[in-house]
Amino acid sequence: MPRSRSSPHGKPDAPPAPALPMPAPAKKPRRTAQRILEVTLELFNRFGEPNVSTTLISAELGISPGNLYYHFPAKDELVNRLYDQYEAEALPLLQAADGVQHVEDAWFFFHTLFERIWTHRFLYRDLNDLLSKNRHLETRFQALLQHKARAMREVLHGLTRAAGRAPDPRDTAGTADAMVVVLTYWLSFEYVRDPRRALEPDHAGAALVRGAFHVMSLLMPHLEPAHKQHLLGLVDAYAAPPT
Amino acid sequence: MPRSRSSPHGKPDAPPAPALPMPAPAKKPRRTAQRILEVTLELFNRFGEPNVSTTLISAELGISPGNLYYHFPAKDELVNRLYDQYEAEALPLLQAADGVQHVEDAWFFFHTLFERIWTHRFLYRDLNDLLSKNRHLETRFQALLQHKARAMREVLHGLTRAAGRAPDPRDTAGTADAMVVVLTYWLSFEYVRDPRRALEPDHAGAALVRGAFHVMSLLMPHLEPAHKQHLLGLVDAYAAPPT
Repeated sequence: MPRSRSSPHGKPDAPPAPALPMPAPAKKPRRTAQRILEVTLELFNRFGEPNVSTTLISAELGISPGNLYYHFPAKDELVNRLYDQYEAEALPLLQAADGVQHVEDAWFFFHTLFERIWTHRFLYRDLNDLLSKNRHLETRFQALLQHKARAMREVLHGLTRAAGRAPDPRDTAGTADAMVVVLTYWLSFEYVRDPRRALEPDHAGAALVRGAFHVMSLLMPHLEPAHKQHLLGLVDAYAAPPT
Repeated sequence: MPRSRSSPHGKPDAPPAPALPMPAPAKKPRRTAQRILEVTLELFNRFGEPNVSTTLISAELGISPGNLYYHFPAKDELVNRLYDQYEAEALPLLQAADGVQHVEDAWFFFHTLFERIWTHRFLYRDLNDLLSKNRHLETRFQALLQHKARAMREVLHGLTRAAGRAPDPRDTAGTADAMVVVLTYWLSFEYVRDPRRALEPDHAGAALVRGAFHVMSLLMPHLEPAHKQHLLGLVDAYAAPPT
């Protein structure tokens, strides 16, 4: 399989048709829709959206194509619902940028943001291709980028003010946009550097720390020396292997 | 058509089968191969590599599929040859980073680099997808990223030393990698912000200036105030509409 070099027909973590220990109650349509979304997200993240067909999704779930069609009449509707989930989590988080005044706030802010990106990483893996085929994503993602850019400016201005300086928009506008680019494409960059392993679940921890660190490295010159040391300490603590 | 929303069957700039004003001399194989590469590059840039088939390429050239096959037995060989062209131009350019000591050198360095990226922009539009399917690109592109990272460190260190300071690797390593990300994904970011127009030829000039400026905005905090003003002046001069 192109992306992770393992077969999409291999077993994922969730078995397709679990043997229930007692007579199954009639499934609520809402619960089935939720289960479809969970399994689809896992398959998209693992193999890339272009490599996952609705046939594969229904086979993986152990349901008929007709049942899948009843809940989601097209693959794009699955993509859109998963995107909407992601957006619903990301937008309130981006609002939290307004409260960032200390380098430690910024560290947790970016780390949490990268966790959200990781859970829906299929969106970022084939971003241009997804947007070119899907009008809903095209318009929503552009709005999301604007929210991201606003959040980056807030963080940058908050930390600059905390360092006792007045933010200069001519200095910070370019940096804020560059931070959006690093935030948006960090996982793609990890993938290009190591396509066979970068997006596998056991690489998540290290990839998220590197992503947060690299976005924050653009803040570094705007920090006081004490805050800079504090940031480097946080990176070392997070990058250390768990004991 | 997904990417540029116009049909790949529309006429490109080069007409498929020009009426020659005089009897045509027998074509040299080498010239045909070169013409195939030129037309393929134009189609890849315009519609995205995944949306261009060898059938479309031979139709566009007005040659038989067999003739195309004689020169390039698979689409990947076209991709690889175009990548090799790009790499052959990019590597010597990246070496020039060693001589950057003034903000104006850096500006011309990044602007020229973005011009090279623009001429082979199809590589950057669907980078993850191309790498996942092509072992030659996967290995070569990783090496190219390492050359890019080295070049970014050289520029950063050169300008820091020119400002009379000693570069601190803990400060600059993260910035250099972030600069590679902005350099690599700037055109993707332009595309996501405006999928219908970003990669059309008449947007090249402005996109290249924005790309060079945003990579350099990461250098900004490392510059002396006079150099910073100089950079902002260059950006204004380049961003102004031609008279």
